[in-house]
Amino acid sequence: MATSILISEVGPRDGLQSIDSILPTATKKQWVEKQYEAGAREIEVGSFVPAKLLPQLADTAEVVEYAKTLENLNVAVLAPNLRGVKDAVAAGADKIAIPFSCSESHSRRNVNKSHEEMFQEIETCQNYVAQLTDDERPALEVSLSTAFGCTIEGAISARTVVAAAEQFVEMGVDEVGLSDTTGMGDPKQLESLAKDIWHHCGREKLTGVHLHNTRGQGLANALKAVELGFTTLDASLGGIGGCPFAPGASGNIVTEDLVFMLHSMAVETGIDLPQLLEVRKWLQDQLPNESLYGFTVDAGIPPDWPFSNSS
Amino acid sequence: MATSILISEVGPRDGLQSIDSILPTATKKQWVEKQYEAGAREIEVGSFVPAKLLPQLADTAEVVEYAKTLENLNVAVLAPNLRGVKDAVAAGADKIAIPFSCSESHSRRNVNKSHEEMFQEIETCQNYVAQLTDDERPALEVSLSTAFGCTIEGAISARTVVAAAEQFVEMGVDEVGLSDTTGMGDPKQLESLAKDIWHHCGREKLTGVHLHNTRGQGLANALKAVELGFTTLDASLGGIGGCPFAPGASGNIVTEDLVFMLHSMAVETGIDLPQLLEVRKWLQDQLPNESLYGFTVDAGIPPDWPFSNSS
Repeated sequence: MATSILISEVGPRDGLQSIDSILPTATKKQWVEKQYEAGAREIEVGSFVPAKLLPQLADTAEVVEYAKTLENLNVAVLAPNLRGVKDAVAAGADKIAIPFSCSESHSRRNVNKSHEEMFQEIETCQNYVAQLTDDERPALEVSLSTAFGCTIEGAISARTVVAAAEQFVEMGVDEVGLSDTTGMGDPKQLESLAKDIWHHCGREKLTGVHLHNTRGQGLANALKAVELGFTTLDASLGGIGGCPFAPGASGNIVTEDLVFMLHSMAVETGIDLPQLLEVRKWLQDQLPNESLYGFTVDAGIPPDWPFSNSS
Repeated sequence: MATSILISEVGPRDGLQSIDSILPTATKKQWVEKQYEAGAREIEVGSFVPAKLLPQLADTAEVVEYAKTLENLNVAVLAPNLRGVKDAVAAGADKIAIPFSCSESHSRRNVNKSHEEMFQEIETCQNYVAQLTDDERPALEVSLSTAFGCTIEGAISARTVVAAAEQFVEMGVDEVGLSDTTGMGDPKQLESLAKDIWHHCGREKLTGVHLHNTRGQGLANALKAVELGFTTLDASLGGIGGCPFAPGASGNIVTEDLVFMLHSMAVETGIDLPQLLEVRKWLQDQLPNESLYGFTVDAGIPPDWPFSNSS
């Protein structure tokens, strides 16, 4: 089991893109700052997609620019195509995640591209970043979304997921990530997929997992990921964004509940849990019309709990 | 990992004792019947405690009598003392759980007894059942509550928990069970406690675990329990009862979410998940003023999911 985990906070991207409320840019910066002060060292601060599609994230470049002023913070963004990647590079992002949906039906519906077209698009992105100088070049990760199943296609064959991973690694991307977009994954499937990809691509090419809690399985899958040796777990503060298919279920796993689990097992995250719970309460105040999720904030930290800050 | 798990449905006891609504006896019988028809083979149907303390469960003897008519159903009850055990035996219960709080402060507050007094009480109960005929004799399990921590005392030393387990096993009780009453447990602690008790008492004396979801950790702990080889997991339909300290958190882990996890990993439970979800909806109709929990009921079973009935 890993003895320390990097929690990549994706609330400002995956959370905010899923709700109607639009946070002012200044508030987003405050969120990034508060989360950083609570110990976060990677935050996905936004997406480079057309503002007419996601007006909630139209100010991503400005948020990136601010986040870059925080020392040792890995500033991550999402970009679905070359245009987004170029914007992300121009803004100075440290890490760019490009989503590739392992379900071709989902890919067509989501970004109107076949698998073949997405392979070409991502190769173009990789070629673009490859010719940048060391100072400019961000890490490029392909996020293998719907890897555990698709609401349209149902089961996705492991062969499809692994073959895609292999193709991206051959292109030269820095990493692939496993993404349980639909909350259909289970610990055994995670283990099987991870080992298969590690066997074909090398362990260093897959170190992160993006889990959802659609059917309440998020932390069980997170436990398995940690046991397997994954070192980066995506999570969102207060599970912001929720799951449109499951009222009461968070979308992403809940950062503070994940921190509680990891610290309880003496797995370090560098995060101060009491301080993180304060940020969570602050975020709820900024989003009075949105539901936040997770249980630790209400149950509280147990008396005499020795793991509030495990860094 | 175990290939099949007995889910002990504790909703009619642990769930109903925690809510204000009182279900009519006929409705309780219907619940037991429906859950049985969905595949449940152990149900904790009530408690033998004074009706003035828990009027919700005053009809336990009648529910036991009905449940005993269902073939191959293990009919479990809770009893805190000799008087309750005698009533449970008279009613014909197959299994009696006696709670022993590993936190002495919690024991005094809950049942007004010191550890020494509880050891004596449980020994008297064990001596009582030992002299019954084979036909009359129920299985006696001591449930080690607050084994993972206490809201009053904080951390509970593993030595206290293991010493209590040893003492009960020496008395001759059939089993001890580990109970995370306060939702403070984590997978590593579960592994450590279980191995310690197995080492001192033998594996066959500890096969069941009772988990709560107070801080969202329930299914992660359940995964670890299954990986360790536990074969009985308590759970409650719709997480009925909730957690008074954590609004939105179920008390017990949610039966249907647990079934989803286990079946996904091809671990059999004998339960038909679609049918169980129907029982859950029916239960909500019977308890219109109570919140139920869990996510699978809203998210639904994924398309083409092959594990609806894994028996």
